[in-house]
Amino acid sequence: MLTPHHDGSPLHVSNPAPALGEVVRVRLRVPPGFGPLEWVGTRSNPNREPRFDEARRLGEASGWDWYEASVEVENPVHGYRWLLVGVDGRQHWLNQVGLSSIETRDHDDFRLVSHEPAPGWAAESVMYQVFPDRFAKSADAPFDELRARGELPAWAMPAEWGDPVDPEPPGRSQQVYGGDLDGVRERLDHLVGLGVNLLYLTPVFPARSNHRYDASTFDRVDELLGGDDALVRLVEAAHARGIRVIGDLTSNHSGDAHEWFRTAQADPASAERSFYFFGPDGSYESWLGVPSLPKFDWSSSELRRRFVEGPDSVVAKYLKPPFGLDGWRIDVANMTGRLGAVDLNAEVRRTIRRTMLDVNPDTILLGESTNDAASDFQGDAWHGAMTYTPFTRPLWSWLQRPGSPAGGGIGFARNAVPAFTARDFLEAHLRFAAGFPWRTRIATMNALDTHDTPRFLTHARPATVPVAFGLAATMPGIPVVWAGDEFALTGADGEASRTPMPWGSEADPAVEPTLAAYRALIALRRAHPVLATGGIRWLAASDDAIAFVREATDASVLVFAARGAARLGLESAALPQAGADGAADVTAPGAVPAALVSFGEPRFEASGAGHAIETDAAAFGTWLLPGVAAPET
Amino acid sequence: MLTPHHDGSPLHVSNPAPALGEVVRVRLRVPPGFGPLEWVGTRSNPNREPRFDEARRLGEASGWDWYEASVEVENPVHGYRWLLVGVDGRQHWLNQVGLSSIETRDHDDFRLVSHEPAPGWAAESVMYQVFPDRFAKSADAPFDELRARGELPAWAMPAEWGDPVDPEPPGRSQQVYGGDLDGVRERLDHLVGLGVNLLYLTPVFPARSNHRYDASTFDRVDELLGGDDALVRLVEAAHARGIRVIGDLTSNHSGDAHEWFRTAQADPASAERSFYFFGPDGSYESWLGVPSLPKFDWSSSELRRRFVEGPDSVVAKYLKPPFGLDGWRIDVANMTGRLGAVDLNAEVRRTIRRTMLDVNPDTILLGESTNDAASDFQGDAWHGAMTYTPFTRPLWSWLQRPGSPAGGGIGFARNAVPAFTARDFLEAHLRFAAGFPWRTRIATMNALDTHDTPRFLTHARPATVPVAFGLAATMPGIPVVWAGDEFALTGADGEASRTPMPWGSEADPAVEPTLAAYRALIALRRAHPVLATGGIRWLAASDDAIAFVREATDASVLVFAARGAARLGLESAALPQAGADGAADVTAPGAVPAALVSFGEPRFEASGAGHAIETDAAAFGTWLLPGVAAPET
Repeated sequence: MLTPHHDGSPLHVSNPAPALGEVVRVRLRVPPGFGPLEWVGTRSNPNREPRFDEARRLGEASGWDWYEASVEVENPVHGYRWLLVGVDGRQHWLNQVGLSSIETRDHDDFRLVSHEPAPGWAAESVMYQVFPDRFAKSADAPFDELRARGELPAWAMPAEWGDPVDPEPPGRSQQVYGGDLDGVRERLDHLVGLGVNLLYLTPVFPARSNHRYDASTFDRVDELLGGDDALVRLVEAAHARGIRVIGDLTSNHSGDAHEWFRTAQADPASAERSFYFFGPDGSYESWLGVPSLPKFDWSSSELRRRFVEGPDSVVAKYLKPPFGLDGWRIDVANMTGRLGAVDLNAEVRRTIRRTMLDVNPDTILLGESTNDAASDFQGDAWHGAMTYTPFTRPLWSWLQRPGSPAGGGIGFARNAVPAFTARDFLEAHLRFAAGFPWRTRIATMNALDTHDTPRFLTHARPATVPVAFGLAATMPGIPVVWAGDEFALTGADGEASRTPMPWGSEADPAVEPTLAAYRALIALRRAHPVLATGGIRWLAASDDAIAFVREATDASVLVFAARGAARLGLESAALPQAGADGAADVTAPGAVPAALVSFGEPRFEASGAGHAIETDAAAFGTWLLPGVAAPET
Repeated sequence: MLTPHHDGSPLHVSNPAPALGEVVRVRLRVPPGFGPLEWVGTRSNPNREPRFDEARRLGEASGWDWYEASVEVENPVHGYRWLLVGVDGRQHWLNQVGLSSIETRDHDDFRLVSHEPAPGWAAESVMYQVFPDRFAKSADAPFDELRARGELPAWAMPAEWGDPVDPEPPGRSQQVYGGDLDGVRERLDHLVGLGVNLLYLTPVFPARSNHRYDASTFDRVDELLGGDDALVRLVEAAHARGIRVIGDLTSNHSGDAHEWFRTAQADPASAERSFYFFGPDGSYESWLGVPSLPKFDWSSSELRRRFVEGPDSVVAKYLKPPFGLDGWRIDVANMTGRLGAVDLNAEVRRTIRRTMLDVNPDTILLGESTNDAASDFQGDAWHGAMTYTPFTRPLWSWLQRPGSPAGGGIGFARNAVPAFTARDFLEAHLRFAAGFPWRTRIATMNALDTHDTPRFLTHARPATVPVAFGLAATMPGIPVVWAGDEFALTGADGEASRTPMPWGSEADPAVEPTLAAYRALIALRRAHPVLATGGIRWLAASDDAIAFVREATDASVLVFAARGAARLGLESAALPQAGADGAADVTAPGAVPAALVSFGEPRFEASGAGHAIETDAAAFGTWLLPGVAAPET
């Protein structure tokens, strides 16, 4: 597996946020024994016409031959790939999938992007996802007050915190436990204890369901959740603890109880009529044909103005004081603005981001697109994807018990989890990750599960939760904790997984090891910035185990993950070798790097000929390695 | 290689030109022994949200299990792929690349396209490409008259027909042999004799070069070529012989002698100033920085009106009487409208096609995009691509002598031809062809070479011209003869290949076999419509040989191509088996299908256990097989 390497990390790209027209230096590392080479360089495709830039050899460092090419960023998304020509005339192309002796297609190219980048903190985030109705009830919960006064909304079916979740309609959407935003605020110490630094709240606007994706207004926070003031208090308290907060908007549709839709339906002459797709008979387009979720018509400039465009829009309002949200996750981003022959998706997403840049550029914008998200996620608006293709589904396919079902929401065909080896996991990951620019990869959500999916633990192979979350915490992307995973909750589908949090069970022997694993893995991630922004180089994959290294100039981290007994051989030359502070020089026979965090009992074995990692059962291990010394330009 | 099969041909798709919203029936064939299957169906992605449609089993026919799903065309380009789930739970995806047990990306999906299709004759065309200056001089050539009067353009460097081509500037662009359009007309019987039915003329507008891609006006045909009347005469004469004629326009740039550019440069206040990208200092953008080729700025509505939009535009003028061209090939289509952050390519190409549809819908539009063309060629404007990625370069890589150079124009990196096996050829072909809808594939140019590239024969392996052109004639796409290939011309690069036609050498022993091969292969193509529009199923590939079958209900054609000694085994179940008229029942032991056209000595061997094709040297063979009996719906 020791092949030439390049990725979008600072080791290999001189400026990850170049201006249009800027010249960026990109670097390729060629391992010993690959070659000799006659020509090395990049192939760009500006304005869709190929351009080759020869690289010059910088010299040897850290055991690799380094080459550098200068690439002018001629288009906002500037693709490039490497070409290596041997003295024997053999050609190899290197793109985001890997090495190919056959010419490759453009969509797997590396990319330099001149659009405004995400804030630096995006990739450094560890996300905690909260579904407000199910997280925590505050001491003076509005739900209890309203219930006592008989003033709960008519649709609401009140439930006690310990009641089982009802996955069938009408309870499925209408069962209300009464969690609220002050409840979240009162539990912020739990988030601090976990080490997360980004809180993602699913919708908080009034609606007619527990999930609130059917908003009835965007003008105010739901009274059941404590109203606007509770959101302000929560964001302030979170910020005080170093935790950022993002909200959730659905740009594809509103609820049919939305004030805009009500007006539109009642008055065909209203401005709001143009916000939706009404037919002459009063019928209208809706999300997957569900009448309670009427679809927005983004050809309406008034809709744009009210919802997404400019400082008075909904998008802007909650980023400004007094709310101060740090960004948005956009629901059903994939379908937004698309219907039949019309596709306004790019316009809508770019308008949202432009508004955010005007109001507060230090915010992030994530888009839900749970399948092949690449075409929309080239850096013009969405910073990262909530998608299940590069990580979540491959992870499940590798780590779920064979033949496991997967309830709805996670997007497995036929609700069945196909059985993958670790090699398959890697192939699937690379296939989908290759569609993204590097900047998108490091801001994309690495979720084991979400509020829309079954929980990972439900049918997981024994002892693989630390393996799975270990990968979320160490692969490029934002690690995501869906509230309750750290309490070892299960749930067979996207409805059943919305269990109220089992507060008080933290010390339960069935919970404590999981909680400890999450804490340790998040601490690992946050202690080593290389895990957020460092390069990634895959070292080995077998049926049951996989290994890679994240690399930066100051430190590298070796990661090993296994679902059962396994042994992976590693060429010693494959590991970073410069002797940096605090990291073992693994070139020395018998040298064993410093273990950082491990679960199960992975053993690093060092010998002169090469190294190996071995385990007798499911295991996850990380070791500190030297940083990669890059040569001077 | 016997795997489930689907392609865009009539055997598998009920309507190749559906309206938006129409339900199309798509069919999958599953070979015996693949399965048993629990579920078969399609996965579409309307508005980017997956939708699964279960297929029903129609029954067995021609030895296959047939399934049919109904797919609503929800977007103008509606992608779909097949999912096959075994009773053991194993999942297989089938897309345009092939079968995968790992989820696949959208860009390799099959596609249903609701945009206006190409005329039916596009796929039935065999193209003959003429570079007017080098094809033939008429009896009263304007060149000779002008030369005698001393009125040749100042730039022109006159040459005699037998002079060698000068590949170096200034001769490279300025050497003029004086071929003209009446010369082409006088040689139409040569085209009739070859069997071609589509003549593609490189530019005929006045310019300051022999290639005329630097037009100085679009208002009239170059006087050197005989002017407007000569074009009218040529098109009329061609039509009378059943040969359609298309022209060549460069939408990316004009010449710097163009009247628009002259006006723009002379008068900054002129309307034409907006046609180009002028800087404040009078500098301007040009094609790859070549000052004689100033780049058009398509944000100019006046440029659109004059050049491409509406019945008075250049695009329209030459399709109407008295000219009556049958379409356009657009030069540098890939770069058109693209510069920096601006990308108006889709607008320009769609405007061109809309104008053509208004003036004469029975026309074709081809676009030059010689690398990964997929993103622009989804069916919204270009019917087919002049591209070298799915066919030309893979073909060269397989059939050129190892270590051969390839002069400029064909787009090999470092001007070197990498060495491919036939397996590599197939992989490269599928990789790039998978980006196109089926309708684009069958209207895309399958060229061994063009006026822009070296000639295939120059460094070809022995006896492989019939193999190469045999593949052009039998694979999906429009076979292309670049004038002179049939005379066994060589040429080391895109300049040297523009040799004047060696008229009179038809009976030369060094020419006659090549001419005969072209005639036979074109006759084969035209005698069997299945080679134009039938499905394609790959049967086998080794280092040196490849086999596939084109299939339709009335007949199938088996194709074998080898660059040297080779033997390919074929499962007898892999071949079409229903006994149709005139085709051998290859299921019977010892049955040998009817040979159609062959070169070299490929031998079809039949046995009970399976069949084989064998050859001792480079060979190309075709055999008639039964049509594929599809079950009733």
